[in-house]
Amino acid sequence: MTDLSCTDTTPKPAIILVTPQMGENIGAAARAMANFGLTDLRLVAPRDGWPNHEALRNASGALDDLVQARVFDTLQQAINDLHTVLATTARPRDMVKDVYTPQSAATRITSEQTGAAIKTGLVFGGERAGLGNDDIARCHGIITIPTNPDFSSLNLGQSVLLVCWEWFRALDNTNDIQRPLGDSFPATQDKMDEFFVRLEHELEKGNFFKARDLKPTMLRNIRTMLTRAGFSDQELRTLHGIVSALIGKKKAAKDTP
Amino acid sequence: MTDLSCTDTTPKPAIILVTPQMGENIGAAARAMANFGLTDLRLVAPRDGWPNHEALRNASGALDDLVQARVFDTLQQAINDLHTVLATTARPRDMVKDVYTPQSAATRITSEQTGAAIKTGLVFGGERAGLGNDDIARCHGIITIPTNPDFSSLNLGQSVLLVCWEWFRALDNTNDIQRPLGDSFPATQDKMDEFFVRLEHELEKGNFFKARDLKPTMLRNIRTMLTRAGFSDQELRTLHGIVSALIGKKKAAKDTP
Repeated sequence: MTDLSCTDTTPKPAIILVTPQMGENIGAAARAMANFGLTDLRLVAPRDGWPNHEALRNASGALDDLVQARVFDTLQQAINDLHTVLATTARPRDMVKDVYTPQSAATRITSEQTGAAIKTGLVFGGERAGLGNDDIARCHGIITIPTNPDFSSLNLGQSVLLVCWEWFRALDNTNDIQRPLGDSFPATQDKMDEFFVRLEHELEKGNFFKARDLKPTMLRNIRTMLTRAGFSDQELRTLHGIVSALIGKKKAAKDTP
Repeated sequence: MTDLSCTDTTPKPAIILVTPQMGENIGAAARAMANFGLTDLRLVAPRDGWPNHEALRNASGALDDLVQARVFDTLQQAINDLHTVLATTARPRDMVKDVYTPQSAATRITSEQTGAAIKTGLVFGGERAGLGNDDIARCHGIITIPTNPDFSSLNLGQSVLLVCWEWFRALDNTNDIQRPLGDSFPATQDKMDEFFVRLEHELEKGNFFKARDLKPTMLRNIRTMLTRAGFSDQELRTLHGIVSALIGKKKAAKDTP
């Protein structure tokens, strides 16, 4: 989980929407920002003015306090105080600018922010036409989200979600794979060995190893498959219980004429 | 860009929605699948039946041919033919299961698929209550999407989008940073050197280096800042043009009494 006390002082990129049309998408963008800890939303000439009821409704509360929205007349005004600005575009432009994936863009802006109050912004165009070339010329690089070429259209809310997610992910230090064990703990290997010895003993009694020469291989295979699961101490007790119950059942079955 | 001829034969995970409620979210999920090349959508007991007009409308065409949706009565029926199944949950459960991030889950399923027809599925719960513990017990692991703890709710469409994106991203081989140069090509360094020699000459004539002892440092700084931009041959011609124009202007200004 990202340490919020850390990200609160880490400079965060502003999200800049240029001439957004649908309040629904502005709301979805604000919601995605809140999901991933971004707070600075800048709207350049939103079609339906501001505040926008539909945006507030779709933000699910994100615009109430977490995300601050401000309105500007031009992109230049919206980026005046920033140092590094990247433009998100769906299609290639005839301009010599570095084209980032969302993840390499996140790497660039989080690297620049390390130890310096570098203010960055991520710019998104409106629903109809995206960003104009004059807008893109003001930006230091381009972000293009790779998609299936047969179905490449991402809406504004989805694009903001993916770019915000990658920013969060670049800072996030959640372990890749976690195994919560609750009150229990992984079984120690002496206890696992005890179990395997017991199991072998019971299998021997049950005439499991009919082909004597295969016994070592069969035992190794059983150890392999049961070790792979990585049992907890609690689960190991359950395994012992299962063996006991099976023996008892068998015995009971045998004892009954 | 992902090679589709490759991904078409790569096994792709099925997306399984358990008791989804809003057609809008089913549509958004289908759309996200299409964006990232997934095709197998399985709906377990959708509240409003199937087909669902609202889902079709929100899928923006994704359900027309790219994504095939099938309906099942139970999760067990929906996963019967699969080998590995991961459940997406927002909150931790009191179960000993590995918890993956979307990216480590993508790594796991794409690794398992390498060279083997392992069929995988990614399971999402309905809007109201998510997945029940009995559903999760049928799955091999859990995916939890890390979010801002102060605003953690992701809707169903957003969750499917992020998980599909990470699957695509794990297969995608888009260069992290690209610089499209169009018809031009990066300038060779002899041409850059020519330019710097010319610039030095013109700056000398313009009396730019007033502090003689600082000249080497100033020249080095100029080289540094202009080399960083990585000019193309076309841009280098433009730079020469700029210098020529500036000299001409200066000369003209000087020539005029």
